Amino acid sequence: MCTAVTYCTRDFYFGRTLDYDRTFGEEVVVTPRKYPFKFRCMGTMETHYAMIGMAHIAEGYPLYYEAVNEKGLCMAGLNFVGNADYKKEMLDRDNVAQFEFIPWILGQCDSAAQASGLLERINLTDHRFYSELPPAQLHWLIADRHGAVTVEAVKDGIRVYDNPVGVLTNNPPFEEQMFQLNNYMHLSPKEPQNHFSEKLSLRAYSRGMGALGLPGDLSSQSRFVRAAFTKMNAVSGDSEEESVSQFFHILGAVQNQRGCCQTDGGRYEITIYTSCCNADRGIYYYTTYENHQITAVDMFRENLEETQLARYPLITGEQIRWEN
Amino acid sequence: MCTAVTYCTRDFYFGRTLDYDRTFGEEVVVTPRKYPFKFRCMGTMETHYAMIGMAHIAEGYPLYYEAVNEKGLCMAGLNFVGNADYKKEMLDRDNVAQFEFIPWILGQCDSAAQASGLLERINLTDHRFYSELPPAQLHWLIADRHGAVTVEAVKDGIRVYDNPVGVLTNNPPFEEQMFQLNNYMHLSPKEPQNHFSEKLSLRAYSRGMGALGLPGDLSSQSRFVRAAFTKMNAVSGDSEEESVSQFFHILGAVQNQRGCCQTDGGRYEITIYTSCCNADRGIYYYTTYENHQITAVDMFRENLEETQLARYPLITGEQIRWEN
Amino acid sequence: MCTAVTYCTRDFYFGRTLDYDRTFGEEVVVTPRKYPFKFRCMGTMETHYAMIGMAHIAEGYPLYYEAVNEKGLCMAGLNFVGNADYKKEMLDRDNVAQFEFIPWILGQCDSAAQASGLLERINLTDHRFYSELPPAQLHWLIADRHGAVTVEAVKDGIRVYDNPVGVLTNNPPFEEQMFQLNNYMHLSPKEPQNHFSEKLSLRAYSRGMGALGLPGDLSSQSRFVRAAFTKMNAVSGDSEEESVSQFFHILGAVQNQRGCCQTDGGRYEITIYTSCCNADRGIYYYTTYENHQITAVDMFRENLEETQLARYPLITGEQIRWEN
Amino acid sequence: MCTAVTYCTRDFYFGRTLDYDRTFGEEVVVTPRKYPFKFRCMGTMETHYAMIGMAHIAEGYPLYYEAVNEKGLCMAGLNFVGNADYKKEMLDRDNVAQFEFIPWILGQCDSAAQASGLLERINLTDHRFYSELPPAQLHWLIADRHGAVTVEAVKDGIRVYDNPVGVLTNNPPFEEQMFQLNNYMHLSPKEPQNHFSEKLSLRAYSRGMGALGLPGDLSSQSRFVRAAFTKMNAVSGDSEEESVSQFFHILGAVQNQRGCCQTDGGRYEITIYTSCCNADRGIYYYTTYENHQITAVDMFRENLEETQLARYPLITGEQIRWEN
Repeated sequence: MCTAVTYCTRDFYFGRTLDYDRTFGEEVVVTPRKYPFKFRCMGTMETHYAMIGMAHIAEGYPLYYEAVNEKGLCMAGLNFVGNADYKKEMLDRDNVAQFEFIPWILGQCDSAAQASGLLERINLTDHRFYSELPPAQLHWLIADRHGAVTVEAVKDGIRVYDNPVGVLTNNPPFEEQMFQLNNYMHLSPKEPQNHFSEKLSLRAYSRGMGALGLPGDLSSQSRFVRAAFTKMNAVSGDSEEESVSQFFHILGAVQNQRGCCQTDGGRYEITIYTSCCNADRGIYYYTTYENHQITAVDMFRENLEETQLARYPLITGEQIRWEN
Repeated sequence: MCTAVTYCTRDFYFGRTLDYDRTFGEEVVVTPRKYPFKFRCMGTMETHYAMIGMAHIAEGYPLYYEAVNEKGLCMAGLNFVGNADYKKEMLDRDNVAQFEFIPWILGQCDSAAQASGLLERINLTDHRFYSELPPAQLHWLIADRHGAVTVEAVKDGIRVYDNPVGVLTNNPPFEEQMFQLNNYMHLSPKEPQNHFSEKLSLRAYSRGMGALGLPGDLSSQSRFVRAAFTKMNAVSGDSEEESVSQFFHILGAVQNQRGCCQTDGGRYEITIYTSCCNADRGIYYYTTYENHQITAVDMFRENLEETQLARYPLITGEQIRWEN
Repeated sequence: MCTAVTYCTRDFYFGRTLDYDRTFGEEVVVTPRKYPFKFRCMGTMETHYAMIGMAHIAEGYPLYYEAVNEKGLCMAGLNFVGNADYKKEMLDRDNVAQFEFIPWILGQCDSAAQASGLLERINLTDHRFYSELPPAQLHWLIADRHGAVTVEAVKDGIRVYDNPVGVLTNNPPFEEQMFQLNNYMHLSPKEPQNHFSEKLSLRAYSRGMGALGLPGDLSSQSRFVRAAFTKMNAVSGDSEEESVSQFFHILGAVQNQRGCCQTDGGRYEITIYTSCCNADRGIYYYTTYENHQITAVDMFRENLEETQLARYPLITGEQIRWEN
Repeated sequence: MCTAVTYCTRDFYFGRTLDYDRTFGEEVVVTPRKYPFKFRCMGTMETHYAMIGMAHIAEGYPLYYEAVNEKGLCMAGLNFVGNADYKKEMLDRDNVAQFEFIPWILGQCDSAAQASGLLERINLTDHRFYSELPPAQLHWLIADRHGAVTVEAVKDGIRVYDNPVGVLTNNPPFEEQMFQLNNYMHLSPKEPQNHFSEKLSLRAYSRGMGALGLPGDLSSQSRFVRAAFTKMNAVSGDSEEESVSQFFHILGAVQNQRGCCQTDGGRYEITIYTSCCNADRGIYYYTTYENHQITAVDMFRENLEETQLARYPLITGEQIRWEN
């Protein structure tokens, strides 16, 4: 499954893990301003904000997993299996197919606030990109440095939640994930105090015991709690290097190691890639499961007045630096 | 604190994290065969097996944190505060100072079995390297591809335990750590089955729920369980690249993120470095907190007939690969 | 707070704990068929099914906490603070005050199925029994031997849920409580199997380890899980004595011991009473915190054609049987 | 398995649960001062302190499970399977068979301090009561109002531990049980504070959340933690009735409900009986699984100058008080 987080130092950072048991041929894709986005029901967006992110390109179309646009607005889609529910076209609504949602928002909004306005009249439809494939069941994190919202299309309709923790994983729905955090409110990065009994001389025999009770497994609810604790307590310098390094450490807390999560047919879920966007500078950083080195693509080094997508295949083998 | 693990694919791998709130100026150090090891009570070892590992060099002497020798025997010292107990010199024993222990074993043993023989007559003494500094309170993991043992010098004397899991962290003593694993025997990388009640239709709403109950905090006992689960279930190809990559993922499960473990004086414990030795090839790989790329030093590219230490200062800034 | 459970052997049993830090003067009350129930908006019910249960009598009116009627239909109200939401009177609805809800259902329904029909047109109103006291924030468990439903009056309106586990506690809402049970599906009354690693000889060092992970605290979510596990796995003979005894053991798993749950002002929440109704025979059994002996009142030993309430003050001191 | 606890208000109380999947025909037994205790190696104790407790009488000999003597010294034996180790007779030691240990101590000691003195020269032997039955593997809690000790006969010899918590269950050894309490030091009867993040408005949605993390299963380690938390935080009045009532509530926290702990052959472990001795007054109170009412036997109402045991078979059926 997946985990998305936000992180703010001097600049604003946004990224995610993609955890799955196979890959779909994703690459880093810059969509320049004049690439025409053709929507099923909403016409064609001839010019729009440029964006960079991870996408699978199908028939020349960037199916973004997550992206940031040139205004610093970020958006990621994460699995929401069994709960996502898309509708047929509706009158008086912006009918946007599930796979068009990221271009629709990032193409025209310069902030999460503006996106929230658009969301009031949106209807996420069940149009298929490929007729033989049902739409991916997702929910979304939309964020800029001023705040984050979670968007869920469920049976009852579109729900938009303020997301004060800046974290999203998968099931259960976001509201329940947030509620469960109450069960962990006692966790702390500090050494625990003895509240068990004044009459017993209990002691911390190790550093790190203040967070005893933090779940360590890879289920979506446990990753939500662990990512939230790590992100909310993260400390780093605010330089680009320190911020990016710390961001990858935060998402490192929810990595899937091959072998720890077996899926049907004896396959294993792994963290296929981990990304970190500097939303202010339009830089997309990533690592892959087989390459610990951070690779970077800078949107603003591309010609953003172009009509063609710029594509950067992933660097996937370990790039080891030999010292002798 | 720290975590050490072993991992065996085609080759044998051994490594550790060093978690602390400050650094002591460690570097990768190759000790060639003719560097003279002068022992406090055991004379001078003029020739010995060459070794590579992480060390702080003090007065020309390599104080190894962990190392592997040219025969593939590996050894690491990990914090054991409050439990380690060193003695005065004893008659009829090999009196080895705590800080000499790694050279003593790796200098002359070609296997864990041979090391076990030596351990039968060892006495770890409280000799100080610097007279003003008490000896570090440590316990040790000694391993080759055929097995691993844990060595603890406690009040009652030297204890040597078979270590079937190939993992060591810190407190409590190893035997209790192993015992606590019994409490996690139900954890699994597979999807959980409903044993709660046949009459309820409970279900796995997320992948990864088979390991619900795995602790996620940074205390030494929780890291022991998490590292054991991750290592025992790890799956990877057996090429050098796949094995090394997977090894760093295993230790990634017990990384300390800055901010999650506060120490006295408002400092934070972080994983200062993570290492992985290919014991068969004498290659030492490492990453640091601020550099996700793997750096490597190959012992066999040095002249091992030398008398001088070969030193490689750590690469500590993020080595980012720019794609445009 | 409180826990309600159902249990079925040869007869059907229903009961609850009442956990609080003070008492309101409750007693066992039999309401005979001709006691006139005057409803705020629904007129007067001159004749109705007789019922027995625990109630606080205010101005001659039985404010039932839980009760069973002569047809074997059972109903209990449990705290639901912060989530319960009662409305003003509505047209075309059965407007029933929160405090009238138990008489309204038990007075006229002979089954949970019939109650579900009535619930389709109910509106729970915020009428106050005493003008100075806001209505208690509750949700309800309604059950007979064929099934159980949970009723919640929330902001969005009345919600009725099938309750396959036959357990109700307090917050969060029932649907979320049920969802959380998925996280405990691996728990079992049997000895755990080693799924951690085939290569380690882990073992059950104690009986009862199959349920490791079962929460032991007194929060409402933990009590829900614990009561569900205990009830779903409970085994007893089906005689009256064995069934009643086992029922009190099930609720024993969620007792509040004085001192373990401190409330504001240094008071302590305790299990003020525990009840068990034999729904088929109209017998009400109870214990109190200070009296472990079971006391019983049989509805059918009363004259049910009466108009007056029959009242049995609680036996609260330990009734110790001296053997010498 | 079993749980023993101490509790002190105005008087000193001591008791235990006996959890097992079958019964051995135990009864309340008063041993008067002149009943001759014949020891295998230590001769015959013709006169001794009188004692009362639960025992299985075999060939006229009281095999006590737990007892209190007329001086207020209490002692209980609890299962310690796999760890208990009894020796052959030794020179210069008090050779006491495992089954003679309670009479040996309670017969001649008036305090835990005096018992500790005797323990310095004891050797617990593997003499069998019945030649065909191996000795029960036990460890012991010895306590008076001034303190408690745990006695374990293990491979290395007799170990005596100060027991500051006044609780004993079964495996692992006591020292490890005590150590594990450190992992629960943050638990509290008070409402939890938000230490997770100041930036999130987490809240206690239920009473009792301060003890989130308390284990709820029936394994011996979980019962130790739960009994310790309940006992150390227990609050009651100091009258006999309030103290006894509270004592049974403390042990109520570790009751085994039938069905929750399945043993080999499809049997179930239950709490066969729960006892509470008033050590100052020599009163033995108990309940059984099938009888919630407390039954009492007063040692001082017997003729303690007798030579014959006084026996009180258990009252096992529910003693229900009918109110109408």
